[in-house]
Amino acid sequence: MSEKLIRLKKLLGEVSDLGRAASVLSWDQQVNMPSMGAEARGQQLATLGKTAQEKFTSDEVGKLIEDIKQEFNGSDPNSDNAAMIRVAARNYDKSRRVPPEFVAEKAIVSSKAFEAWVEAKGKSDFSIFKPHLERMVELAQKYVSFFPPADHPYDTLLDDYEPGMKAEDVKTIFNALRPAQVELIKAISSSKQVKDDFLHKKYNESKLWDFGVSIITKYGYDWDRGRQDIAPHPFETTFSVNDVRITTRFEADNPLVILFSTMHESGHAMYEQGIDPKYERTPLSGGTSLALHESQSRMWENLVGRSLPFWEHFFPALKKTFPSQLEGVSLKSFYKAINKVEPSLIRVNADEATYNLHIMLRLELEIAMIEGKVAIKDLPELWNAKMKEYLGVTPSNDAEGILQDIHWADGYIGYFTTYALGNLVSAQLWERINQDIRDLDDQIRKGKFDALLGWLREKIHQHGHKYDPQDLVQRVTGSKITPEPYVRYLTKKYGEIYGL
Amino acid sequence: MSEKLIRLKKLLGEVSDLGRAASVLSWDQQVNMPSMGAEARGQQLATLGKTAQEKFTSDEVGKLIEDIKQEFNGSDPNSDNAAMIRVAARNYDKSRRVPPEFVAEKAIVSSKAFEAWVEAKGKSDFSIFKPHLERMVELAQKYVSFFPPADHPYDTLLDDYEPGMKAEDVKTIFNALRPAQVELIKAISSSKQVKDDFLHKKYNESKLWDFGVSIITKYGYDWDRGRQDIAPHPFETTFSVNDVRITTRFEADNPLVILFSTMHESGHAMYEQGIDPKYERTPLSGGTSLALHESQSRMWENLVGRSLPFWEHFFPALKKTFPSQLEGVSLKSFYKAINKVEPSLIRVNADEATYNLHIMLRLELEIAMIEGKVAIKDLPELWNAKMKEYLGVTPSNDAEGILQDIHWADGYIGYFTTYALGNLVSAQLWERINQDIRDLDDQIRKGKFDALLGWLREKIHQHGHKYDPQDLVQRVTGSKITPEPYVRYLTKKYGEIYGL
Repeated sequence: MSEKLIRLKKLLGEVSDLGRAASVLSWDQQVNMPSMGAEARGQQLATLGKTAQEKFTSDEVGKLIEDIKQEFNGSDPNSDNAAMIRVAARNYDKSRRVPPEFVAEKAIVSSKAFEAWVEAKGKSDFSIFKPHLERMVELAQKYVSFFPPADHPYDTLLDDYEPGMKAEDVKTIFNALRPAQVELIKAISSSKQVKDDFLHKKYNESKLWDFGVSIITKYGYDWDRGRQDIAPHPFETTFSVNDVRITTRFEADNPLVILFSTMHESGHAMYEQGIDPKYERTPLSGGTSLALHESQSRMWENLVGRSLPFWEHFFPALKKTFPSQLEGVSLKSFYKAINKVEPSLIRVNADEATYNLHIMLRLELEIAMIEGKVAIKDLPELWNAKMKEYLGVTPSNDAEGILQDIHWADGYIGYFTTYALGNLVSAQLWERINQDIRDLDDQIRKGKFDALLGWLREKIHQHGHKYDPQDLVQRVTGSKITPEPYVRYLTKKYGEIYGL
Repeated sequence: MSEKLIRLKKLLGEVSDLGRAASVLSWDQQVNMPSMGAEARGQQLATLGKTAQEKFTSDEVGKLIEDIKQEFNGSDPNSDNAAMIRVAARNYDKSRRVPPEFVAEKAIVSSKAFEAWVEAKGKSDFSIFKPHLERMVELAQKYVSFFPPADHPYDTLLDDYEPGMKAEDVKTIFNALRPAQVELIKAISSSKQVKDDFLHKKYNESKLWDFGVSIITKYGYDWDRGRQDIAPHPFETTFSVNDVRITTRFEADNPLVILFSTMHESGHAMYEQGIDPKYERTPLSGGTSLALHESQSRMWENLVGRSLPFWEHFFPALKKTFPSQLEGVSLKSFYKAINKVEPSLIRVNADEATYNLHIMLRLELEIAMIEGKVAIKDLPELWNAKMKEYLGVTPSNDAEGILQDIHWADGYIGYFTTYALGNLVSAQLWERINQDIRDLDDQIRKGKFDALLGWLREKIHQHGHKYDPQDLVQRVTGSKITPEPYVRYLTKKYGEIYGL
C-alpha cells in the first residue's frame, strides 16, 4: 500500500470514528438522555459533525484522493481500494460543497426539532413542531442550493440515500406499482375481512419482549455484538461491526407490533453485523444504500416473519406463552390476522399491501415542500386529504397524522422513498433466494435460518458499501430495481389469504 | 468582550464538546456496551482525545491566550474571564507538553486495560491484568517525562487532580493523620464490637434501589437533569450541567452498600448540577479538584448518610420496607451497625475510621511504581503484605486485593490520594456548616436538606473550577486542607459509638 493510501486511510478512519461517536450520542439521546440534556447534546453533536467535516474536507484529503486516483489508473476498478477511493471521492465532492457552519447549524436545529417533535407528538399538536419543520425545510432547500442544478431539486436529497437514483426513476417505478396495489386493495376490500380481535387483547410487554428476543436469536442476530433497548421510535444504529444496536417499542393497543418491530430492526442489524470487518473505519463500511438496508429489514419482518412457514414453527410457542389470549385461535387464523389488509393511519403499522401508499403520499408532500409549493402550516390538512384519497381513512389528530414519523424532525427529507424501494428489493431478492435455496420454506418451518442468513451475508452483507445499490441488485438478481416481483409476491400471498 | 475572547471561547467550547462526547462514550462502555465493542470504542475514544487535544493545543489557542492575558493585565484577577484565562493557560501549557500520539495511545491502551481488568477481576487472576498495568505505568512515567523535573515525579501526576498539591504535602498531612487513626482503631478493637448480622441478610435489590432513589431525591439530586444506572464500578459523569449521571451496583453479600454508593455518587452529581451554567463549555466547568469533589460525595454519604439524625428520619421507612430483615433492630443498633469499624479488604466498603489507611497503602504502591522500584508482578504480594501491616487483614485472592479498583486500568495513577483528602475536606467544611446552620441536625432529623444543599451551592458548587482547591478551602473555612477536623469528627463519633 502506498504511503499516500496509508495516510488517507488513517484520516478517513478518524472521520469514521467521529461519525460513530456522534451515533453513540444520538442513540443515547433517544434511549437514555434526560430531556433537559437536549441543548448541550445538540451542541456536542454539532461540534462532532463540524469537526468530522473539517477533517474530511481538508485540502490534504482532497489531494490524497486525487493522487491515489492517478496511481490506480488502469487497475481493477472492482478492487476494494478502487471502490473505497471511488466512494471517498464522491463523498468528498459532496462534503466540500456543504460549508461546515451549515452542518453545525443543522445539527443544532435538528436536536431542538427532535425535542419539539417528541412534545408535539405527545400533545398531538402540530403547531409545536411547525416552526422547527419550517427551519428543516429551509435547510434542505439551502442544502440543495450547494449543488449543481439537477433535473429536480429532490434528486439532490435522494442521491444521499440512494446514490444514482432520481425522482423521475422513482416516479416511474411508483406509477407502475400504484395501479397494481390499488387494484389489489379493491379486490381485498370486496372480500370477506379476516378476524383479528385476538391480536388486540392485553399482552404482557415483557413476555413479548422475550419472545421477540427468542425470534431474532434464532435469526442469527449476534447479542455479543449488540443489544436492544426501548426508544420512542425503533431504529438500528452501528457503532462498529462489533456493536450494532437496535431499539423497539411497545404499543398497548397493538401489542404484537413489538415482535415485528424487533424482527425489522434485527434485519438492519444483521446486515451491519455481516459486513466484512476489513471495511471498518473506511467509507465502505455500512450498508450500500437505504433501500438495500430496508430490503433486509423488510425481508426478516415480512417475507420471513409474516409467512406461514415461520408461524408453523413459532405459533405453538407463542400460544404457550399467551394461552388465554390465543385460546381457540388456529395457526391459519393467526397467520391471516397478522396479514390483515386494512387501510390505516400509521405507516409503521401498515400492512404490506397498503404500506407503499403511505410512502407515495410522503414523497408527494416532500416534493411539494422542497419546491416551496405548500405552506408548512397547511401540511396537516394536506396530509389528511391525501390519506383520505389514497387510503380512504382520515387521522383524527396530528399524532396519528403528520406527526407520526421522526424523520423530518431529524432532518431526513428524501428518505421515505427508500422504504418503498426496500420493499421492492426484498421481493426481488426473495425470488432469487428461493431459486438458490429450494427448500427454504421447509427450513423456516423448522426454525432454521442459517442458510438464508448465509446467502444474504455472501451476496449482500459482506460487500458493505462497495457497490452502488442498482449495481448490487443487478449483480445478484440480473436486473435493476423493478416492481414486478413485489407485485407477484403481494398478489400470490393475498390471493391465498383473501381467496381472490 | 473582545473579538479574541469570543474566538477563544468558541474554540474552548468545541474542545469541551469533544471531551463530553468522550464522556458519553465512556459511560456507555461501562453501562451498556457489548464487550465485543471494546476495540472500536477504544479507537473512537482515542480519536476524540487526539482531536480535542489538537484543537486545544493549536498555535491559535496559545496566541489567543497570550494576547488576552495582556489585555487583562491589571484587571480584577478574580473576574470570571481572568479565572478562565488562568485555568486555560495552565491546561494549555500542560497539553502542549503531551504529544497527541501519546494521548491517542493512552486511550487505546486504557480501553483494552479496562476490558482486561473486568476479566481479571471476574476470574480473580492478576496475571490477565498484569501486562496492561505494566503498560499503564510505562505510560505514566512517559507522561511525567514530558514535564520539567518536579521535587518528585509523583507531583506531576498529582497536580492533574489537585492543582498545586505535592507528594510532600500529602505525606505531611498523612503523617499527622496516621497515628490518630491508628490509635482510634486500637481503642475500638479493645472495645465491645457492635452487632451487624442484620445488614447481611437477604435484601431485595430493586427495593433497595428504590430506597436509595428516595433518599437522593430528598437530598435534592435533580432527576430532570440526570439518571442512575447499574455499572461494575459506581461513578458520576457529566455530559452537561443539565445531564449529570450516576451509576451504582448491588452486592448480594453486602446489600445495604448500594444505599451508600448511591448517596456517595449523588454528592458528586449535586456538585456538578450546582455549578453556575455560565461556566458551561469553558475550562471553569466541572468541580475544582478531585478532593473537593470527594468532599461532597463523602459528606452526603458519611457525614449526612451515616449520621444518627439522618436515620432518625429514614429508619422507620427502611424498617417498613424490610420488616423481616430488621425485626427487633432498634434505631441505635442500626446506626451502630452501619458505622461498625472493622479493618477489611475492600476500600469502597471500608468504614470511615479505616478508609484512609487503604489510601495510604495505594499512595505508597503508586510512588513505588512510578519510581520503578517494584516489579508489577510483585504487586499482589506487596499489596497483601501492606494490608496485613496496616489493617491486619489479608486478601484471599486478587479480586479482593489488588484488582478491586478500576483506577489503574483507566490510567488514573495519582488519583487515590484525593479520596483521603476529600474525607479531610468534608469534615473541615462540616465544622463550618454547623456554625452557619445551627439547627442542621434538627433539619436532617426532619429529612430536610435544602439549607445544607443551598450552603454548598453558594460556597462551593456554583464556583466550578474558578478557584484552586486550597484557595477555595481557605476562602470558605479560613485555613488550607488540614487533618484536625476529620480527627475531631472521628474521635467524637466513634467515641460515642464504642463508648471510648
